[in-house]
Amino acid sequence: MAQAIKKYQKKAEYSFTFGAFPTFELLKNRPEAVRGVYVHSRMDSPETFEKLKSLCDTAGVRLTISDKQVERLREKDSVLIIGVFDKYRNTLRQDTDHIVLVNPSDMGNLGTILRTCLGFAIHDVAIIEPAADVFNPKVVRSSMGALFRQQVMLFPDFATYEQQYGQNRTLYPFVLHGKNVLQELKRPEKERYALIFGNEATGLPPIFESMEHSVTIRQSPEVDSFNLSLAVGMAVYKFTEGDPLS
Amino acid sequence: MAQAIKKYQKKAEYSFTFGAFPTFELLKNRPEAVRGVYVHSRMDSPETFEKLKSLCDTAGVRLTISDKQVERLREKDSVLIIGVFDKYRNTLRQDTDHIVLVNPSDMGNLGTILRTCLGFAIHDVAIIEPAADVFNPKVVRSSMGALFRQQVMLFPDFATYEQQYGQNRTLYPFVLHGKNVLQELKRPEKERYALIFGNEATGLPPIFESMEHSVTIRQSPEVDSFNLSLAVGMAVYKFTEGDPLS
Repeated sequence: MAQAIKKYQKKAEYSFTFGAFPTFELLKNRPEAVRGVYVHSRMDSPETFEKLKSLCDTAGVRLTISDKQVERLREKDSVLIIGVFDKYRNTLRQDTDHIVLVNPSDMGNLGTILRTCLGFAIHDVAIIEPAADVFNPKVVRSSMGALFRQQVMLFPDFATYEQQYGQNRTLYPFVLHGKNVLQELKRPEKERYALIFGNEATGLPPIFESMEHSVTIRQSPEVDSFNLSLAVGMAVYKFTEGDPLS
Repeated sequence: MAQAIKKYQKKAEYSFTFGAFPTFELLKNRPEAVRGVYVHSRMDSPETFEKLKSLCDTAGVRLTISDKQVERLREKDSVLIIGVFDKYRNTLRQDTDHIVLVNPSDMGNLGTILRTCLGFAIHDVAIIEPAADVFNPKVVRSSMGALFRQQVMLFPDFATYEQQYGQNRTLYPFVLHGKNVLQELKRPEKERYALIFGNEATGLPPIFESMEHSVTIRQSPEVDSFNLSLAVGMAVYKFTEGDPLS
């Protein structure tokens, strides 16, 4: 790679993993996207190095020891391992359940949600733009690398998602005043579903409330609403409650 | 108050609410603990001021306009309203369900958990020390004032909690390898319960795994474990699923 790699920018074609664990996840799950791995000479765990080397070899990725490169790209002094990867595109599958995030704005939340969905074996996540930058290293970090195990697809608006993937599935938008209550809901036996969530501050636009399967999480009147990552967690828990998950 | 009030310290006998909403919650729910309320002259919402004045009058609390005091005590320049309150002590009730947090270390998590519990009408929270300082203004903020609606009681160790409150309730410790799976659990019909959670990084000590009602949240092998506030959220969701919550 003769071309100089710069610190993360949203418009760049590449992004980074900082630290051992997300770099392992990157190499295991998206080997074709990896441009290279850089290690600082202060990285002194032989086990970590061996594992990294072996994953790089399997993936056909070059491992370079370069203090200069690591120090130039990292955002915290504690980072000793950096993976550089090309941003890639996914498509969702028609025969799986989906999570749809409409205009999520917080990168930490987005990563947490990707990880939570993975924990319940949901692997297809639609993001309706404008939205937080899913390839930002902060999302990679808060997802603990779960990003690389998810199919994540961006859409310019909800209508585009619905047209492409809404035909053979039930759409459950999560709203403040829904027609159904999560606690009493029976999950569909056969049909696929999409669980739809709005922005952290503003929620889903009002039109979603009138949809047949709109859902509210019943809660005490002492609290306004749950935060987004908790709402997604409870919803996904409920919808996958009968699944083996393995 | 002749005595000078200082910035927050763990060892101090008082703490603060920063901003309008938590100060409202403080005045409504713990009026007897409030030492005073300070407002900056740049606070220019008449509605907020009227509401604050009315709550102070009802609580018999003095409202002082003092730029100097607000600027001295606040941690962010955007704060224009500060409540000063005496740290107070609670006891838990015997005839309610409890959440027990063993050595929680993150103040943001702690606040989120207090708020989530409130959302599911659980009002009694035991904290086993050492633990994050529950009266730190960061906990107040992340709880969005829910702290003031909760009975929170500190214990030097789990045995002390168990001795005092464990007799007529089922204890459900949440662990990685439990004897039960949350998804398949039947919540007790009549008996009271305590849901017990460990530290963010280390979880509960191994001895909890061998307890009869130890619980694991079933999850995909692709993920190690859920974060603490999500685990509490799912557990509380499940245990209160049949409750009216109002």
